[in-house]
Amino acid sequence: MNVLIVYAHPQPRSLNGALRDFTVQHLEAAGHHVQVSDLYAMQWKTTIDAHDAPQRDPSEPFHASLDSKRAFQSGTQRADIAREQEKLRWADTVIFQFPLWWFSMPAIMKGWFDRVYAFGFGYGVGEYSETRWGDRYGEGALSGKRAMLVVTTGGWASHYSARGINGPIDDVLFPIQHGMLFYPGFDVLPPFVAFGTSSVDAESFGNITRALGERLDSLATAAPIPFRRQNFGEYDIPALTLKDEIAPGKTGYAAHLA
Amino acid sequence: MNVLIVYAHPQPRSLNGALRDFTVQHLEAAGHHVQVSDLYAMQWKTTIDAHDAPQRDPSEPFHASLDSKRAFQSGTQRADIAREQEKLRWADTVIFQFPLWWFSMPAIMKGWFDRVYAFGFGYGVGEYSETRWGDRYGEGALSGKRAMLVVTTGGWASHYSARGINGPIDDVLFPIQHGMLFYPGFDVLPPFVAFGTSSVDAESFGNITRALGERLDSLATAAPIPFRRQNFGEYDIPALTLKDEIAPGKTGYAAHLA
Repeated sequence: MNVLIVYAHPQPRSLNGALRDFTVQHLEAAGHHVQVSDLYAMQWKTTIDAHDAPQRDPSEPFHASLDSKRAFQSGTQRADIAREQEKLRWADTVIFQFPLWWFSMPAIMKGWFDRVYAFGFGYGVGEYSETRWGDRYGEGALSGKRAMLVVTTGGWASHYSARGINGPIDDVLFPIQHGMLFYPGFDVLPPFVAFGTSSVDAESFGNITRALGERLDSLATAAPIPFRRQNFGEYDIPALTLKDEIAPGKTGYAAHLA
Repeated sequence: MNVLIVYAHPQPRSLNGALRDFTVQHLEAAGHHVQVSDLYAMQWKTTIDAHDAPQRDPSEPFHASLDSKRAFQSGTQRADIAREQEKLRWADTVIFQFPLWWFSMPAIMKGWFDRVYAFGFGYGVGEYSETRWGDRYGEGALSGKRAMLVVTTGGWASHYSARGINGPIDDVLFPIQHGMLFYPGFDVLPPFVAFGTSSVDAESFGNITRALGERLDSLATAAPIPFRRQNFGEYDIPALTLKDEIAPGKTGYAAHLA
């Protein structure tokens, strides 16, 4: 299969660099085709602005979503954006690898999502009506593809446990896994998280790569996180709240898991 | 009082631009001193990299946190970073205003936190021992100051309600309010969120600014979100899990509210 790795870390000589190299070698050894978007090495343009729609009318005020829509529809997006969209079309599975900085991804990867997820591609897809609210949350341009996060944290596993001070890791990652991956259609595999990576010796590196290797071997077969799909009867439309009979009494992120 | 507004929107002629102008005028009319960090206008450097520590040893691999620590301690950070830290020291209250993009802040503002929150300033402050785990979550360089988010969303309030598909807005904002603001010491006021802002007419703009004005009038007096402080007996250290007798049986973000 075709695997795209979107990777954000400033230093190749690092745990993240070593895990990225391990992942590429492991997947290629298994016969897969791999491309890497190494955002730091590419000097990825992080900030969405008027330069992303080079043929827009400069006398009009820039509008992030409308200009994105026009540029996407007319094939006049900046080349770096179109290239990443092409890689996404090529991929069967996409791995997003990054260190957790301030409980989210590094800015350079947030800027990848802000820019590559154009209106008409990442959002604003499909019909908005009384019965459907766009092709999103389980449908969309990326449906049929799989995605998985590979994340390192300085904090310990206990800090991200059910009663840990940082919040449960599944909740910390929900806006990414549900809001950025499931939203445009990805099937999202459970994340691979390496905790407490401020210092990693040879033994723990061996443990991490062994566990990661097993996850890479099951990319095509592992069961995705069972997020509820938006347009298949479980949500009122357009309020987009769970119907009373679905997970009655449950609130918060967990209610959106079947 | 001194109010810093950290603001991220690409277009001055926009709802966000109008709300920013309203906020500045409203606060100045009440006698406050206001500075604005308009990240797009400043062409804020979004990505943390070796250029942020100009006097580092270039023969060594760049290390985001260690190089940040050395540059902060030796006074050799890039000037743009030092300037923002100085504004934070000056401020009594900081407002972070942005449109919610992909359930988080625009990349340019994430890059403000990634870079301005240096090791020794935003994190890595204080003693790490068996009884304290740094000056964080209620203590730190920014303690004694207040912070408030001003956020616009395209999605409707129901989409961000307790059973809404995007997740409750308090959960979506938790990694920012708890993880990025309470962490270095801010008292965090409840957020001001304007939902459903894809199109805003004069009447709804009037409603938004009226409500925002009331929030601005109570910046100094409103009760902050009662996040539990880390080092004051409610958490086991260094596991950083809630002690059994604190909010027994409760898990997830809500357990960290007193």
